[in-house]
Amino acid sequence: MPNTAYQDLEAIFHRISLITETIGVLYWDAATVMPEKGSQARSEQLAELKNIAHNLLISDKIEGLIQEAETKIEALNIWQRKNLNEMHSKSIRARAIPRDLVVAHSKACFSCETTWRNALKDDNYSVVKPFLQEVLNLSVQIGEAKAAVLNCSLYNALIDSYDPGSDHTEIDKVFKKYEQIFPNFLNEVLEVQKSETKPILYKKPVPAKVQKQLSIKLMSLLGIKFDGGRLDSSAHPFCGGIPEDIRITTRYDNDNFTSGLMGVLHETGHALYEMGLPKKWRRQPVGEAMGMSIHESQSLLIEMQVCRSRQFLNWVAPIIRRTFNQSGKEWSGENLHKIFTRVQPTFIRVDADEVTYPAHVILRYRLEKALINKSLNLGDLPLAWNDGMKSLLGITPMTNKEGCLQDIHWFDGAWGYFPSYTLGAMSAAQFFSAACDSKKEIPNAISKGDFSHLQSWLIDNIHCKGRFFTTPELMKNVTGEHLNPSYFIDHLKTRYLSQI
Amino acid sequence: MPNTAYQDLEAIFHRISLITETIGVLYWDAATVMPEKGSQARSEQLAELKNIAHNLLISDKIEGLIQEAETKIEALNIWQRKNLNEMHSKSIRARAIPRDLVVAHSKACFSCETTWRNALKDDNYSVVKPFLQEVLNLSVQIGEAKAAVLNCSLYNALIDSYDPGSDHTEIDKVFKKYEQIFPNFLNEVLEVQKSETKPILYKKPVPAKVQKQLSIKLMSLLGIKFDGGRLDSSAHPFCGGIPEDIRITTRYDNDNFTSGLMGVLHETGHALYEMGLPKKWRRQPVGEAMGMSIHESQSLLIEMQVCRSRQFLNWVAPIIRRTFNQSGKEWSGENLHKIFTRVQPTFIRVDADEVTYPAHVILRYRLEKALINKSLNLGDLPLAWNDGMKSLLGITPMTNKEGCLQDIHWFDGAWGYFPSYTLGAMSAAQFFSAACDSKKEIPNAISKGDFSHLQSWLIDNIHCKGRFFTTPELMKNVTGEHLNPSYFIDHLKTRYLSQI
Repeated sequence: MPNTAYQDLEAIFHRISLITETIGVLYWDAATVMPEKGSQARSEQLAELKNIAHNLLISDKIEGLIQEAETKIEALNIWQRKNLNEMHSKSIRARAIPRDLVVAHSKACFSCETTWRNALKDDNYSVVKPFLQEVLNLSVQIGEAKAAVLNCSLYNALIDSYDPGSDHTEIDKVFKKYEQIFPNFLNEVLEVQKSETKPILYKKPVPAKVQKQLSIKLMSLLGIKFDGGRLDSSAHPFCGGIPEDIRITTRYDNDNFTSGLMGVLHETGHALYEMGLPKKWRRQPVGEAMGMSIHESQSLLIEMQVCRSRQFLNWVAPIIRRTFNQSGKEWSGENLHKIFTRVQPTFIRVDADEVTYPAHVILRYRLEKALINKSLNLGDLPLAWNDGMKSLLGITPMTNKEGCLQDIHWFDGAWGYFPSYTLGAMSAAQFFSAACDSKKEIPNAISKGDFSHLQSWLIDNIHCKGRFFTTPELMKNVTGEHLNPSYFIDHLKTRYLSQI
Repeated sequence: MPNTAYQDLEAIFHRISLITETIGVLYWDAATVMPEKGSQARSEQLAELKNIAHNLLISDKIEGLIQEAETKIEALNIWQRKNLNEMHSKSIRARAIPRDLVVAHSKACFSCETTWRNALKDDNYSVVKPFLQEVLNLSVQIGEAKAAVLNCSLYNALIDSYDPGSDHTEIDKVFKKYEQIFPNFLNEVLEVQKSETKPILYKKPVPAKVQKQLSIKLMSLLGIKFDGGRLDSSAHPFCGGIPEDIRITTRYDNDNFTSGLMGVLHETGHALYEMGLPKKWRRQPVGEAMGMSIHESQSLLIEMQVCRSRQFLNWVAPIIRRTFNQSGKEWSGENLHKIFTRVQPTFIRVDADEVTYPAHVILRYRLEKALINKSLNLGDLPLAWNDGMKSLLGITPMTNKEGCLQDIHWFDGAWGYFPSYTLGAMSAAQFFSAACDSKKEIPNAISKGDFSHLQSWLIDNIHCKGRFFTTPELMKNVTGEHLNPSYFIDHLKTRYLSQI
């Protein structure tokens, strides 16, 4: 019997997925082990593989097969139907953008990112501005092309690349709730922390090798197995690889082990999500991870909800002491908790605490919307940035390095990306609350280093669903309601205002 | 102006080369860093990329372009013409073998190799024999398909995959010269070594980390730069990567640093060849390395001709002492020379010395020819192997593990591969002699750790030629005569019989 159109589609998407996995290996290699001089060849190799995958995706053959499969949809079970939907959705999106525009955008991003690296070093915004203008113009053109096909607004078309189905009117509502409580809440937290004894900072450096031992121990306890995973170093922590060969990276600062450790725990959350995706749908669109906000919810659930909790930190403190061969008050769970929950308005997003982080995201969200709809121009960006920081966090950057030059994302073409961070943080709080409601033993188990209850809940309710549900459907199914920032706000109030 | 057919071909072969580079990254990763559980996915990723490259190569489009370009050959310069030849040659070879046969062969090799790993461990030839029979049958079918297209003998069609243009009647002649002197020569060497004081063996282990420091020092001195290269560990040493990101591996035995060190130096020879290939023809067929025997000549020239010489070992001895923080007679250049030139008939090819190594290759060459032309069957292989060892080296393996099971090559489908090792060793001697004739200062410079004279000679005469010449043409151009085993034999006589 010949294959059905649907079966042919599965075979082609399986191939595309193998190419995507290979692209992942090339990126991991470039970030962790590749000698400096390999970068030009690597970018050519990557472009070739992306081109191959893109050509497979936009082929007339796929379009024909999708049409044919859709006429015979009654032969498909419910997962296959969703899979066909996802295939269609990928194909539409890939075909929406003219090839010349993809190439021009990719080149513009490459030049802009390269220029930005020096501009950041030299704190020279004006040198990178024309490059950024080109990236912005082309990103808007891409957004318009997608918006026309997806029949949505320009900004929604841009978010779609990171968080499909997300809608800026919903984001506005959700962010607004945070903005309403934020300035007063921040002041209250600062007051509380001022009234408490300060955390004792660590004075002795901890060698990277010893920090790595701790990371490996904790990754193992959280469910990463090293016959199917690795931990390496890179400039920015990330999680790559495939479920049976998951690869986490972090960076070690000998003078401050806390940031490398939280990097590992955050990426472990991403890794557990990838490892929990439905095995039966491996290498099919419906078996992939949902968008950025769900992915980020899984990393932040582990990092913020679990690992910065008193339960976790009290349990982990003796493990840290043993691994680092240290003792003393500064190594107590209580002091670790103080360090990991210290709040302070600062300029740099990636170093921000859990309370002020959303303010950084909201600033970028406001600015990128204004830049995209042209109510703000790039010449006025530095000033608008500084004004925003002043009004949101009460501090004013003295340099663009600490201001609008700090993040790679816009310079690299990622417009519509920033909201996912805070949507992820909010989703994490809502999911964790649902998990603890459903399995009351979770907090107590965490305090004993037993993560199995939480993990089986995450796998059953989120990971193993792949892309069967949209992000809003998943939230509704799992928690009984749509994304509701109250969970995040309540979590912050409990953690930062209740003095235990 | 639209592209010419030739320009279109260059563009397609550039793409094929990028895919081949990516395949190289996947192999390197699998051999050095990949967790065990990644292997199934890796083999699927590799199969997909090979499939893509193969499909590009056998496309009707390429065939049409080659025909068109050949009608306009007068527009091409001499390098372009050679490049077109190489393109044609690749396309003919790829199209020669029916697709079903490629797939069946690849699967048979995979099963056979997997079975072989256990068969070797358990010393159980009979369990792997049916798998080997299947691999042999399919390899013969592939050889027959190629022979029909290339209009050559079956065995030459098989060698062609490793050493294009090689001819078994020539190999017979060349090997015969060695066989003629071999038994008596070996006895003389053994007598000489018996009469000398024995090498002092190293008793203290040298940690892998310290061995690696030495390897990195020597690689650097030989011309590998670490902003464009790496050194890692793997079960079997190899050289991968690309000219600007060259990746050497070795393995360290704490109790015997000599084998890991020679592994690195051997692979450095391969690396220098890859790095010296014509930059202008990068990613074009004419810019690739010649076949296996030239590649092996470059590694053996460095390992055997240079690094096991008295000049090199006297120079390197103090560097080893400093790096290992050792002193004493056993670390003298003289003792190193004794160790690195010790001759002893043994069972295992990869551990064999320079004098007996060709006997191992000749045994395999004889046996594989007989198996391919069916004058020997696999049931009789173990006995034939042992008889061959007895007659060539005077020793009889007690197990198949030390006999016909020891090498991966036949089990992995590499029939026609073995001769290249000894052709490479012989070519190395002939090239090195030509180099020293042309630049008299080379031996003296080596004794001072200055490899620049040798290296510029190798680049100018061999490396930068890519595939512009065939192997026999290259030999003739560079040394003034065809491959002549006398250079290798003279080298052995000088090194092993002159008592200095």
